[in-house]
Amino acid sequence: MSIDEQLVRVLHEKGDHFISGEELAETLGVTRTAIWNHISRLRDLGYTIDALPHHGYRLAGIPDKMLPDEIRNVLTADSFVSKIHAYDRADSTNDIAMRLAEGGALEGELVVAEQQLKGRGRLGRNWFSPKGSGLWLSLILRPSLPPSAAPQATLAGAVAVAKAIRETTGCEAHIKWPNDVVIRGRKVCGILTEMSSDMDRIRHIVLGIGVNVNVDAGAFPDELADIATSLKIESGRELSRLALLGAVIQRFEEGYQEIRTGGFEALKDEWISLCDTVGKHVRVTAEGRELDGVASGVDFRGNLVVRLPNGMSEHIISGDVAVIE
Amino acid sequence: MSIDEQLVRVLHEKGDHFISGEELAETLGVTRTAIWNHISRLRDLGYTIDALPHHGYRLAGIPDKMLPDEIRNVLTADSFVSKIHAYDRADSTNDIAMRLAEGGALEGELVVAEQQLKGRGRLGRNWFSPKGSGLWLSLILRPSLPPSAAPQATLAGAVAVAKAIRETTGCEAHIKWPNDVVIRGRKVCGILTEMSSDMDRIRHIVLGIGVNVNVDAGAFPDELADIATSLKIESGRELSRLALLGAVIQRFEEGYQEIRTGGFEALKDEWISLCDTVGKHVRVTAEGRELDGVASGVDFRGNLVVRLPNGMSEHIISGDVAVIE
Repeated sequence: MSIDEQLVRVLHEKGDHFISGEELAETLGVTRTAIWNHISRLRDLGYTIDALPHHGYRLAGIPDKMLPDEIRNVLTADSFVSKIHAYDRADSTNDIAMRLAEGGALEGELVVAEQQLKGRGRLGRNWFSPKGSGLWLSLILRPSLPPSAAPQATLAGAVAVAKAIRETTGCEAHIKWPNDVVIRGRKVCGILTEMSSDMDRIRHIVLGIGVNVNVDAGAFPDELADIATSLKIESGRELSRLALLGAVIQRFEEGYQEIRTGGFEALKDEWISLCDTVGKHVRVTAEGRELDGVASGVDFRGNLVVRLPNGMSEHIISGDVAVIE
Repeated sequence: MSIDEQLVRVLHEKGDHFISGEELAETLGVTRTAIWNHISRLRDLGYTIDALPHHGYRLAGIPDKMLPDEIRNVLTADSFVSKIHAYDRADSTNDIAMRLAEGGALEGELVVAEQQLKGRGRLGRNWFSPKGSGLWLSLILRPSLPPSAAPQATLAGAVAVAKAIRETTGCEAHIKWPNDVVIRGRKVCGILTEMSSDMDRIRHIVLGIGVNVNVDAGAFPDELADIATSLKIESGRELSRLALLGAVIQRFEEGYQEIRTGGFEALKDEWISLCDTVGKHVRVTAEGRELDGVASGVDFRGNLVVRLPNGMSEHIISGDVAVIE
């Protein structure tokens, strides 16, 4: 842990109380001048630190930034997040996570960025990822499962985001198959799940989650203006990205634990209860075909089940779904 | 093309006829001394080249080595193999091909090695890949298909190898689900298909094929002695690995063309006709479960369909299958 991280931790522990420069210097094993330098660096990072003669220092505010130590603070003590890779800007957190995973990164390594320059969405689309106003993260997963179970991770991700949004904002978030989270029909979150596997086993999954948190209405590019929204727009207030991140990770861990142990049923039920696609008349564009039917549920692999007019059911692995009724 | 490759090509074109050093020098735009040096290098590579005063040089024999120019010679003119990466030794041709693919290698790039030091099989097993006596190859594929279609490539590979073996050796090769090719019940070929994908599309597949061609009976390690065989053991003669490679690639292209255009039916029928698992009473060990039933076919995704005693059918995505009757 760096001196900065140790310093933040000690200040956090002290809560509302001041701690003297002398005590800090002793605790961290550095000079008082060094403490002063680190305090000043933390202020540059966005920390508000009160300083009073004869009292010392006190943490008065943390920046809503994706800093490893602050992220660690919003995770549970037994969180499966094993390592945090935080970037000010990244081309794409999924690209970084895929490279890390190919290089041997472990289950639970987390990549976050303040800004993505080339954020990617499904089907080769771009993902708008402006600086400081979203949750742009990628999680490395190494479940001992066959590749056909990978879509379950996407579903667990969507459930986690929808629940975390409901808990932290009160907004009525729904899931749109397979992996969008929407509020009032507008997209607030997208998930891009990438995988390396053989035909028997998943080698690694990278679960990319993008949530529009504090994006202002005017900030979306024209092509998204009518279809995208943000939590700030929907709730009418600025939200803590860190708090949302903590909730997303915690909810995801619960669902992921079920998947890993082969118990997809409870998660599936939860997914269906949050989904606003199931029960609706839908048009599916998939694998070059278009078909109309009623979305009747998901199967144990996470595929959408669509009941066709002829009474047969199709299991849709991938594609675009539009609710038409 | 290197001078060596050009020289081999010209000698090939001349067939049984001699060509003078002077003509070679002129054709290739180098000195006669250079020609002499290159001839001597080709001999070191294993080429037999006759040399007669006043006549010149004549190609009398090529080495059974995985040299790019010789491989190109056994491929059809319109082969989809776009580039050949040949190694004397490699840790694993699949590892190399995966790295190449991640770096942007194209559809049809082929990796071959004389020897694999860390050849890999399914389920984390090793693949015995001794020097010069097998076909150890990996093909990079970039089909525009969903990841669930990837097992079809494995099936196309198994069909291609079984047919190529039958054509070049006359041996009765069969397929054992999902991806082994066997002769008299003993394994002569294994296939390891690896993939990088998102949930909608395959990014790339690496189809790894290992065929025991000229492996001698005594050369197999103890644990393989009773379950593995080679084409040399089965046919009683040394075989040209290059000729087999040409046949495998050609047959694979035919099946792969069907898959890419969504026509899996013909390939599936061919697979079933070559398979000695279908119709048999089998025990399947898959995803931590064991089940007995009758293998009744494969579904459109390449999964084995097993009819259970209760009349239900299970679609097996991955696992080990043993014929028990």
